[in-house]
Amino acid sequence: MGTVHQIDDLGKKPDEIITAKLFAFLEQFLPLTSEEKQAILALDVFKSVKKGTLLLQPGSMSTESFFVLQGCMRTYLVLDGDEKTTGFYTELEAFSPTTLATGKPNNQYLVCLEDCLLLIATPELADETNKRFPRFETLCKLLSEKLLADKQEDLDEFKFSTAEQRYLRLLETRPKLVQRVPQHMLASYLGMKPESLSRIRRRLAKSHAA
Amino acid sequence: MGTVHQIDDLGKKPDEIITAKLFAFLEQFLPLTSEEKQAILALDVFKSVKKGTLLLQPGSMSTESFFVLQGCMRTYLVLDGDEKTTGFYTELEAFSPTTLATGKPNNQYLVCLEDCLLLIATPELADETNKRFPRFETLCKLLSEKLLADKQEDLDEFKFSTAEQRYLRLLETRPKLVQRVPQHMLASYLGMKPESLSRIRRRLAKSHAA
Repeated sequence: MGTVHQIDDLGKKPDEIITAKLFAFLEQFLPLTSEEKQAILALDVFKSVKKGTLLLQPGSMSTESFFVLQGCMRTYLVLDGDEKTTGFYTELEAFSPTTLATGKPNNQYLVCLEDCLLLIATPELADETNKRFPRFETLCKLLSEKLLADKQEDLDEFKFSTAEQRYLRLLETRPKLVQRVPQHMLASYLGMKPESLSRIRRRLAKSHAA
Repeated sequence: MGTVHQIDDLGKKPDEIITAKLFAFLEQFLPLTSEEKQAILALDVFKSVKKGTLLLQPGSMSTESFFVLQGCMRTYLVLDGDEKTTGFYTELEAFSPTTLATGKPNNQYLVCLEDCLLLIATPELADETNKRFPRFETLCKLLSEKLLADKQEDLDEFKFSTAEQRYLRLLETRPKLVQRVPQHMLASYLGMKPESLSRIRRRLAKSHAA
């Protein structure tokens, strides 16, 4: 499914609302000067990508990172012929292939589930930006640390909760996602069969109606 | 169990073998100058900690990070009165409370399973070190990215494998750990009951003997 890298240059900067959201996100980690903000907007990193586009596939040694400004990306593995969804990335969420850190080929598919507006960064670009603005390195470090903390929480939560608890937590933490992505992908992401997810949803709807 | 922070200053630098291992580890990420190595050894961060010492507990806002030079630490949660092991940290592995990244209280217990030699770093110390040697920031960023990649792999693997597959992978990736920690903690870490782990081990021993 999808094709690799059918990516259109945006040809213009993201609109003001998206830009404001991006800076609000980054400034959670580190306040930015207006010079730094201009430098970010001047980068050739904003890309418009069609639904269905395959951004990465297993075996690739690509080290591009993808930050979602608008839209939704999905990562998945193929195990015994089945697609197993490993992640959904929506507004202000980022996916980096592990290749960058491990030197091993990427093992995931990364695909756009919706038309997306992405910030696509290469290590070379990051290096160049770090040289001009050393605080970007700090920003990247803080972002990695936050992602690591989130991932640890996800793992602990997954390990020690029931399927229903996992679904309830997702409803609580990412309520829009549940409406936004196909149910069979959601079930796979939650580590359950589609039938189990349907059963849980019916049971919750019933207990809610009661 | 344990007491918080009964930590002895090492009073001397780690011995040569441990120092060599530490630098070999760090230089996987970034080659260091001898000046940088001396700066690391001059830091007041090397501590000797007794088995059973509680280094962190839930509710704490401590932002100290713990890097194991020798020994084994364990993290766990208490859920419904049961200890659930979330991680084991042995030589050249690090635990940072999520507090640093999230601003929320830590939710884990961190305890020494063996007598340990640790490198204990505070954010203030890291800041000071970064000011003198800006490349430490890069080193920390690369380390975070590697830990994030590992954690993503752990989560995917946990989600889409059977209990037996998880045990076999642990035998393959961390063979010494299996000998080193109590079996009931290992079972909990693998997300299974101690009886299930015993059953899997018996079955594997039998098929190996056959």
